[in-house]
Amino acid sequence: MGLLVVGSVALDSVKTPFGEVHDALGGSAVFFSIAASYFTDVAVVAVVGTDFPQRHIDFLNAKGIDTTGLSVESGETFRWTGVYGYDLNERDTIETRLNVFEGFHPQIPAGLASSDLVFLANIDPELQLEVLDQVERPRLVACDTMNFYIEGRREALLETIRRVDVMIVNDSECRELADEPNLVKASRAILEMGPHTVLVKKGEHGALMVTGDGFFSAPAFPCESVFDPTGAGDAFAGGFMGHLARSGDIGASNMRRAVIFGTVLASYCVERFSVDGMSSLDPGDIEGRFKALKGFSDFET
Amino acid sequence: MGLLVVGSVALDSVKTPFGEVHDALGGSAVFFSIAASYFTDVAVVAVVGTDFPQRHIDFLNAKGIDTTGLSVESGETFRWTGVYGYDLNERDTIETRLNVFEGFHPQIPAGLASSDLVFLANIDPELQLEVLDQVERPRLVACDTMNFYIEGRREALLETIRRVDVMIVNDSECRELADEPNLVKASRAILEMGPHTVLVKKGEHGALMVTGDGFFSAPAFPCESVFDPTGAGDAFAGGFMGHLARSGDIGASNMRRAVIFGTVLASYCVERFSVDGMSSLDPGDIEGRFKALKGFSDFET
Repeated sequence: MGLLVVGSVALDSVKTPFGEVHDALGGSAVFFSIAASYFTDVAVVAVVGTDFPQRHIDFLNAKGIDTTGLSVESGETFRWTGVYGYDLNERDTIETRLNVFEGFHPQIPAGLASSDLVFLANIDPELQLEVLDQVERPRLVACDTMNFYIEGRREALLETIRRVDVMIVNDSECRELADEPNLVKASRAILEMGPHTVLVKKGEHGALMVTGDGFFSAPAFPCESVFDPTGAGDAFAGGFMGHLARSGDIGASNMRRAVIFGTVLASYCVERFSVDGMSSLDPGDIEGRFKALKGFSDFET
Repeated sequence: MGLLVVGSVALDSVKTPFGEVHDALGGSAVFFSIAASYFTDVAVVAVVGTDFPQRHIDFLNAKGIDTTGLSVESGETFRWTGVYGYDLNERDTIETRLNVFEGFHPQIPAGLASSDLVFLANIDPELQLEVLDQVERPRLVACDTMNFYIEGRREALLETIRRVDVMIVNDSECRELADEPNLVKASRAILEMGPHTVLVKKGEHGALMVTGDGFFSAPAFPCESVFDPTGAGDAFAGGFMGHLARSGDIGASNMRRAVIFGTVLASYCVERFSVDGMSSLDPGDIEGRFKALKGFSDFET
């Protein structure tokens, strides 16, 4: 199945207790597509400025990622600067410069409008709606968002949520979106907004998938060396949707396996800065951690 | 196998967003023993004052709990007053009155000194050491503690930890004890202190068991109605050790099942105030949630 992501391509400057990088390759569409590239063909719709290094585009293409939907506009590329505290759970955004992203309106190339699977990465819900208006009956649409849009673009966000199948949020976004501290109740409240599945990312605590039928609680991979959590949520979504696309199966059992593959890709993402942790995996690496997660969570009845 | 707990028996006054109770039955040894009573014979060593209602002792005895080690001293029973915030994750202790607990030195009755399994609930590590000096080669000793002792009684606590098999802590205690924000590294650091198993309680995020051989990540039971988290950690420990005692098996696979039974008992504990959520379970309830947890966490490879 064809997989499309619409999101940001960015140059990130990140400082963690373990080091820092300046203008490193980042953005939700980048982390997502690299993770997904290990499973399937994936196409990116996004925008960069004329300052965006060609070597990054070459790198994405070398991973088999279709960048025909990546438009280059005159101006600077979207830049994000952030600092993580001692335990890596707290993140302060120092600066967000939208640059060419400010005038961005996603144009889905004709060949990608019929993609089977679509991921609306964390961008303004008005833009997510523009994507939904352009794609032709995808089999599954998943959507991410953030506190900024939950607070400031609620109407448009609720309209987006009404039209997607899988809502992917982290635990604090889940509580804020539903205005409910209990994560189980909050997830069910989001189901009432439209999606058939809510997927809650909980970082070091794993993930929780909630559907009308029940729950799936996925363990986190026990990472001892977490260097930079940036992009982990997008890598998770990329592994999740990449596996769905590869298998062509969006049934309940396979959705569970997809969550585990998402977990695996996120675990590689956080072990290095930028996209370095995911840049050169082989299928054996991914299968190895998938099986390890089975071993870490299995018990006999 | 015989199971012994040494800990507190208290009268708790608790306020949550959903209501409040005054002088309700509480204390680590109470929550532990009630949870364990569904699996095995369990004996309590603790102290209460002359004001402790006989009906509470009658209730424990009716659950089959051996209270011959519960001494009644002149004075008032240990009292704790706490308030939980909006999301139930934050707890403020308003008042702790040790009362008769201040002069408590556990005396293990002769018939209980040879208990196979011993749980050192959250009390001063000096007292935990007094217990360890009185018991006769138990097959497994587990131990709980809290931030107050990690900060103020570190030397004695480290001596206790050196002598126990299973250290049971919550995630913030785990990080603080090891002075390490990464939970996986922190758990491994605690293994270096002596225990062969570290069991990290993560509330709504489940539990993580770490041994020299590997990890077990247990899901939380998805509770929609959490009324009062007080005692959940002790109920978890009670279900865990109760199952070990019942089965007579402390091997790795059975330890995993024990963690799940602990999770089940904690899930019942938090659904009502005080011990009300655990006061009248039947075996079918417990088996039902055990199997449900299998369903919530299983995936095919």
